[in-house]
Amino acid sequence: MFYQDGRLQYPVRVETPSPLFAKMLQQALGGVEGEIRVALQYMFQAFGSRGPAKYRDMLLNTGTEELAHIEMLATAIALNLEGASNVLKDQMAQQDPAVAAVLGGMSPRHYLSAGLAALPTNSEGVPFDTSHVYASGNIVGDMYANVTAEATGRTLATRLYHLTDDPGMKDMLAFLIARDTMHQQQWLAVIEELGGETEVLPVPNSFPQDQENQDFNYVFLTTSVDGTGPEGRWSSGPSLDGNSEFRQEPASPLGEVPVLAPPVPEAFAQEEQMDPAAAPPATPGA
Amino acid sequence: MFYQDGRLQYPVRVETPSPLFAKMLQQALGGVEGEIRVALQYMFQAFGSRGPAKYRDMLLNTGTEELAHIEMLATAIALNLEGASNVLKDQMAQQDPAVAAVLGGMSPRHYLSAGLAALPTNSEGVPFDTSHVYASGNIVGDMYANVTAEATGRTLATRLYHLTDDPGMKDMLAFLIARDTMHQQQWLAVIEELGGETEVLPVPNSFPQDQENQDFNYVFLTTSVDGTGPEGRWSSGPSLDGNSEFRQEPASPLGEVPVLAPPVPEAFAQEEQMDPAAAPPATPGA
Amino acid sequence: MFYQDGRLQYPVRVETPSPLFAKMLQQALGGVEGEIRVALQYMFQAFGSRGPAKYRDMLLNTGTEELAHIEMLATAIALNLEGASNVLKDQMAQQDPAVAAVLGGMSPRHYLSAGLAALPTNSEGVPFDTSHVYASGNIVGDMYANVTAEATGRTLATRLYHLTDDPGMKDMLAFLIARDTMHQQQWLAVIEELGGETEVLPVPNSFPQDQENQDFNYVFLTTSVDGTGPEGRWSSGPSLDGNSEFRQEPASPLGEVPVLAPPVPEAFAQEEQMDPAAAPPATPGA
Amino acid sequence: MFYQDGRLQYPVRVETPSPLFAKMLQQALGGVEGEIRVALQYMFQAFGSRGPAKYRDMLLNTGTEELAHIEMLATAIALNLEGASNVLKDQMAQQDPAVAAVLGGMSPRHYLSAGLAALPTNSEGVPFDTSHVYASGNIVGDMYANVTAEATGRTLATRLYHLTDDPGMKDMLAFLIARDTMHQQQWLAVIEELGGETEVLPVPNSFPQDQENQDFNYVFLTTSVDGTGPEGRWSSGPSLDGNSEFRQEPASPLGEVPVLAPPVPEAFAQEEQMDPAAAPPATPGA
Amino acid sequence: MFYQDGRLQYPVRVETPSPLFAKMLQQALGGVEGEIRVALQYMFQAFGSRGPAKYRDMLLNTGTEELAHIEMLATAIALNLEGASNVLKDQMAQQDPAVAAVLGGMSPRHYLSAGLAALPTNSEGVPFDTSHVYASGNIVGDMYANVTAEATGRTLATRLYHLTDDPGMKDMLAFLIARDTMHQQQWLAVIEELGGETEVLPVPNSFPQDQENQDFNYVFLTTSVDGTGPEGRWSSGPSLDGNSEFRQEPASPLGEVPVLAPPVPEAFAQEEQMDPAAAPPATPGA
Amino acid sequence: MFYQDGRLQYPVRVETPSPLFAKMLQQALGGVEGEIRVALQYMFQAFGSRGPAKYRDMLLNTGTEELAHIEMLATAIALNLEGASNVLKDQMAQQDPAVAAVLGGMSPRHYLSAGLAALPTNSEGVPFDTSHVYASGNIVGDMYANVTAEATGRTLATRLYHLTDDPGMKDMLAFLIARDTMHQQQWLAVIEELGGETEVLPVPNSFPQDQENQDFNYVFLTTSVDGTGPEGRWSSGPSLDGNSEFRQEPASPLGEVPVLAPPVPEAFAQEEQMDPAAAPPATPGA
Repeated sequence: MFYQDGRLQYPVRVETPSPLFAKMLQQALGGVEGEIRVALQYMFQAFGSRGPAKYRDMLLNTGTEELAHIEMLATAIALNLEGASNVLKDQMAQQDPAVAAVLGGMSPRHYLSAGLAALPTNSEGVPFDTSHVYASGNIVGDMYANVTAEATGRTLATRLYHLTDDPGMKDMLAFLIARDTMHQQQWLAVIEELGGETEVLPVPNSFPQDQENQDFNYVFLTTSVDGTGPEGRWSSGPSLDGNSEFRQEPASPLGEVPVLAPPVPEAFAQEEQMDPAAAPPATPGA
Repeated sequence: MFYQDGRLQYPVRVETPSPLFAKMLQQALGGVEGEIRVALQYMFQAFGSRGPAKYRDMLLNTGTEELAHIEMLATAIALNLEGASNVLKDQMAQQDPAVAAVLGGMSPRHYLSAGLAALPTNSEGVPFDTSHVYASGNIVGDMYANVTAEATGRTLATRLYHLTDDPGMKDMLAFLIARDTMHQQQWLAVIEELGGETEVLPVPNSFPQDQENQDFNYVFLTTSVDGTGPEGRWSSGPSLDGNSEFRQEPASPLGEVPVLAPPVPEAFAQEEQMDPAAAPPATPGA
Repeated sequence: MFYQDGRLQYPVRVETPSPLFAKMLQQALGGVEGEIRVALQYMFQAFGSRGPAKYRDMLLNTGTEELAHIEMLATAIALNLEGASNVLKDQMAQQDPAVAAVLGGMSPRHYLSAGLAALPTNSEGVPFDTSHVYASGNIVGDMYANVTAEATGRTLATRLYHLTDDPGMKDMLAFLIARDTMHQQQWLAVIEELGGETEVLPVPNSFPQDQENQDFNYVFLTTSVDGTGPEGRWSSGPSLDGNSEFRQEPASPLGEVPVLAPPVPEAFAQEEQMDPAAAPPATPGA
Repeated sequence: MFYQDGRLQYPVRVETPSPLFAKMLQQALGGVEGEIRVALQYMFQAFGSRGPAKYRDMLLNTGTEELAHIEMLATAIALNLEGASNVLKDQMAQQDPAVAAVLGGMSPRHYLSAGLAALPTNSEGVPFDTSHVYASGNIVGDMYANVTAEATGRTLATRLYHLTDDPGMKDMLAFLIARDTMHQQQWLAVIEELGGETEVLPVPNSFPQDQENQDFNYVFLTTSVDGTGPEGRWSSGPSLDGNSEFRQEPASPLGEVPVLAPPVPEAFAQEEQMDPAAAPPATPGA
Repeated sequence: MFYQDGRLQYPVRVETPSPLFAKMLQQALGGVEGEIRVALQYMFQAFGSRGPAKYRDMLLNTGTEELAHIEMLATAIALNLEGASNVLKDQMAQQDPAVAAVLGGMSPRHYLSAGLAALPTNSEGVPFDTSHVYASGNIVGDMYANVTAEATGRTLATRLYHLTDDPGMKDMLAFLIARDTMHQQQWLAVIEELGGETEVLPVPNSFPQDQENQDFNYVFLTTSVDGTGPEGRWSSGPSLDGNSEFRQEPASPLGEVPVLAPPVPEAFAQEEQMDPAAAPPATPGA
Repeated sequence: MFYQDGRLQYPVRVETPSPLFAKMLQQALGGVEGEIRVALQYMFQAFGSRGPAKYRDMLLNTGTEELAHIEMLATAIALNLEGASNVLKDQMAQQDPAVAAVLGGMSPRHYLSAGLAALPTNSEGVPFDTSHVYASGNIVGDMYANVTAEATGRTLATRLYHLTDDPGMKDMLAFLIARDTMHQQQWLAVIEELGGETEVLPVPNSFPQDQENQDFNYVFLTTSVDGTGPEGRWSSGPSLDGNSEFRQEPASPLGEVPVLAPPVPEAFAQEEQMDPAAAPPATPGA
């Protein structure tokens, strides 16, 4: 169960409202890198958690913290929209090009659809959809998904920090950037607790590794037409799971040109596709 | 530029076509964990690559390999659909419950929309959309996104491997599972080459770290109503970037209940919302 | 800010797991009528609330309760999936048609993507997207949106109740149905508190009503080719806002056939479209 | 069957074309609050109508009227785009900042994809999707959905009216605002005809009300950490269906912390998740 | 303006309701190949029509006919769902495997969301979205889009015809197949009226053809690694627009490996990406 | 299998970077008319190809060429974004209205999400989704879909050509326009090779044409209320397939007003809908 106290986790102040910055902040609220995503992702990972109970507990603690970040950003967006409808009207009337220019990028739906409040969309108006909630049932796969979310989230927050000179907004973003710092390492700490790369790789580590193809699991395949490729940590030296050595080889086709059976009549291809004389010889697998 | 030779990277054989397995395989083709996603993701990371040239080269090599996996899976799906339209017709006629039962879960669009071929959708018919292509311009953030893609991809492939007894399909999946093993470590090898966690964290490491809030960047905040929380590697010991120590504290609200200004007349709220007497006192940030 | 205690608002028990019922329950979790939608909708209405503070408070209380319903349903789905992967494997093997038939409709992604846990999608695998979160800034419009959500939600819950014989599931649904009963009336109670239909209509009631077209605001227009239409409360008697009388008339075109200007050259229409001789005469508005 | 006469239901005139207003009008055409939605929603309610025939008839009459509003808005958008490609070109050339400023928010797809015509999208370019068409089979639930559509639609139209000074556009919007006034009350008139709130609540009223949980169907649950909550019409007095009395109580967890079974091997979680020693004790429902 | 008479364009009869066929029919209603798409596509082409008035008129006539097809299919789906909820309940209870098998593929939302009526989705539950409405402002491009819609639509209808033995459904589909026959040729007739391929190609024919690259506009480029390619009508003989001769050549890269500038500091890439020593030399275009 | 050499198919140069043109170019990359779509469409048609092998080969050759166009456009977008973040920052600061005006329409996600690189979205930020990949299994239907893609693609490219004065961009677009010219005719050449319109129509031509309704397959139906309609090539003369004569008739309803059975109790409609006395008489098809 969940509870609230109506107060913000951290103060949200806006000295100079900017509807253009309100639009930018939407990316951190409803974008793929945003707070709606992490809140739902950590919660769904908790709700489906199987195995040691403490991971469920940890996920639920942080998923609930992310709800407070949704609240902070939605408040920041609304405060940046104070006064915006008048300037939108002015912009329509073309009477002050300087003002109009600044607000040229305002999201029209902030006024039209929300009456000057936040929307659950990204900075270009695309709604968030939950296909971005990763919860695979494999804890290490999920931790890497969480690190990704916090790394792209912190990158976004630093870019937003760069764009604004408002001291209230800079203060809020400095807080959110700090939380992203912690959360990145929090999820990696789980991987370390589980033994680190030599223990958790490959993900999932519960699949019998002798059932995977042993000729292709530690080789960097190049696809350049001349057969060369870039050398790096990935092309030589021990593999990160400690099980083998990396090497590099040109990719080459081991299969044939695939040939499907002629169309069956009830699929209603064109007649010319169904001419047996024109059909290629069947492949072994067909 | 790109080239092709029409041959498959690895043989694709199906001994006993199964339209239900064709549907399952769609998840590995057009699902969030699938091959269309990684092909486009690695390509877009290459196309936008800034900095040392070898990473662009590496990404392009592997992105191009993933195109071959799209081709393999699309072929595997088509081969599993041979004969499927007849049994769909039989199923409609209710004349053989045993057959009908088996095919109960066939994707109708494999016949209706594609004439017995693969579709660029997931196993439940949802089209792939490119919001899942992560290419942030920060190489470490992108590498973690790639590890996530390969970890969820390998987990999916092992589940598909478990579901089938067809030797051709098991052989193809053993190959794809092996490639996922390599690719997971390939992306982590980039992170190791860049210095490992103590160097690359927090992502991005180019933001001046003294500008983030120093009170909140290494503390695990609990949100439980009783203030307790799960202990683990994340709650004590040195932080993974080597800059500080982890600790644990209960989250508490530092902000106030947010108060927005009354609605402006041109937003056309209800009149009762605009009564100044009913309005709460303004917050400091308003 | 938000808090949690990890416990469920109401007990969730499943005596006989049913992966098919797990799929059905997804509609109440991630469907348009489901709990993710109402949780986010009530929260966004609270976050953007302007005017008397008690409505923000009320919305936040109930939005937070809906988070607990998300948790309950996600748990119910996971409990209904216990054992499901084995029967999916059996189904693939065709060895027990009776079992296969029952599970024919199982969601493949419950196993493939989630490892036997809930997904944030509807019963047909479509992800939830936040375009369904209504928060217009007009409190009466929002209250009607909330009544709609709870009315379609309760209708869905009664249909789910009809489908299951599991006592644990029936008990959980009887609780959720009761909450929908309360919430429907809770939102209508706000409208009553604001004065009821004669005061709040038309929404928004702050637009100067003499600026709307007075010939068309209380007439039911019929579009049947013979000019007749169905009689009812909407076609005679006082209007519900008390401002006028309903009447009924056949719709008739007051405008002309619209004529747009010929294509400009830089739009690159076909040449034949740009022949001035073939162009129709301009309309008054063009 | 449907017919047309090519003429507009109401005159559409534009004195001063404004590509920025064309973009704003898209919200009323292809937005969630727009005309494509109501046209399809009323039609699908009609097509699936069961019970007294007059409601099908009424829905079909008004759904057909909404088609005429689609036509009006698409025409208004095209007329607002006359001349827009030249100024877009000018804007690209940076030669007249004042003009460029005004058109900074023009939708690029109006020129690029449509050659200066309307698109079936909202004001931010998001296509309309039919998940927004509510037709539940329960007439009262559907009527509330229709009131919601018309309330958000009228709110949007009043905001558009505020933004424009063009007399033709103001005249067209005054007509559409008037129709929204009528349609709001038309759908509520059906509810009154069916007996009003005391008869139609809770929706659906055909579910046996003694099967819902009697402890939770008339209580406003607060989720604040201190157990208090906002008082209002919803927290005391007779319920709107006349069956009980409202009251207010703090929410409290009646369930336990949920515990799922350990992962089955074939879900390929990490090995550490499958350690029986680490598993929590099973919950009663597991 | 639009009108209706409530009657169906063609009789819709179902002798033996089949909820599985109801699901299949959804593809023809809300699929990409379906009736909602063509109705909206022809209407939007009409609404944005510039040039000779008769094409607008023609498009409006047929767009309005497609509305009647939406109505027919929605009715057919509802009639196929009569009785379906009971068998869904039976299926849940596992008591009759034969019945359960047949209905294994029923759409759950037909019962859960619509109360046994049609939904505006495809056969796998994906909502229709209006990004599929093609209306480019170029009449020949639009006519080809319309031919495509009718060709995929007729292919779908023939596959549905194959699946059913119900005489009422076969009769309805034979009518819809006939209309698709007419509509395919109707759109091609416009192209013939405009002069046929030698006049209308390339689309758009109003772009000055000497401004396109004259080395690449009539050559079939092969991308095979060995430089060979399939011979056909496309590789020799006069071009279809009569302006040149087709020929075939291997594709070869005329450009260089692209090099982007190093990341700017404010994009917050990783530090290693910003090392000037590691940066590749700039390309000519950078 | 696929290969690459890292070089561009055609040079991509940008003399004067323009973030606004970068946004416009996104339509050609990730829009419905764009390169991601055609690359995937031709590949999926190849992967599912049944019948003569040379069509598979041809589709694979051109699908692979389109990958090079994706690479070119992504590079062009990145080059147009050089320097864009500084001006975005300036725009936020309002200090130079002339600059701000020009960049008012820049896509915020080019900086926020991609760090100044291309995104797989259209010009308004909507991600590409694969429901736009047409591959029906009928080769003629697919060829018309391909002509449509190239016709809308070339129209878009000519509009982009019109917008820019940058010589590098004009040169690149002149190349892409030329390839669209070739590809339009390439797909039509397949139709000519298969016999032209008299042989391939109606699509599919393998459905027994005597099973379609013979009264409606060559008649243009008018839906105007006065029964008249536009005359053209479609209303008289021989049909394009050579099988019949076109004619024109007013549409008229051959069916009745549809009547569905009353709601079943388990669908939980409102009680008033279930009153048998209020139900209309059943239709013949019910």
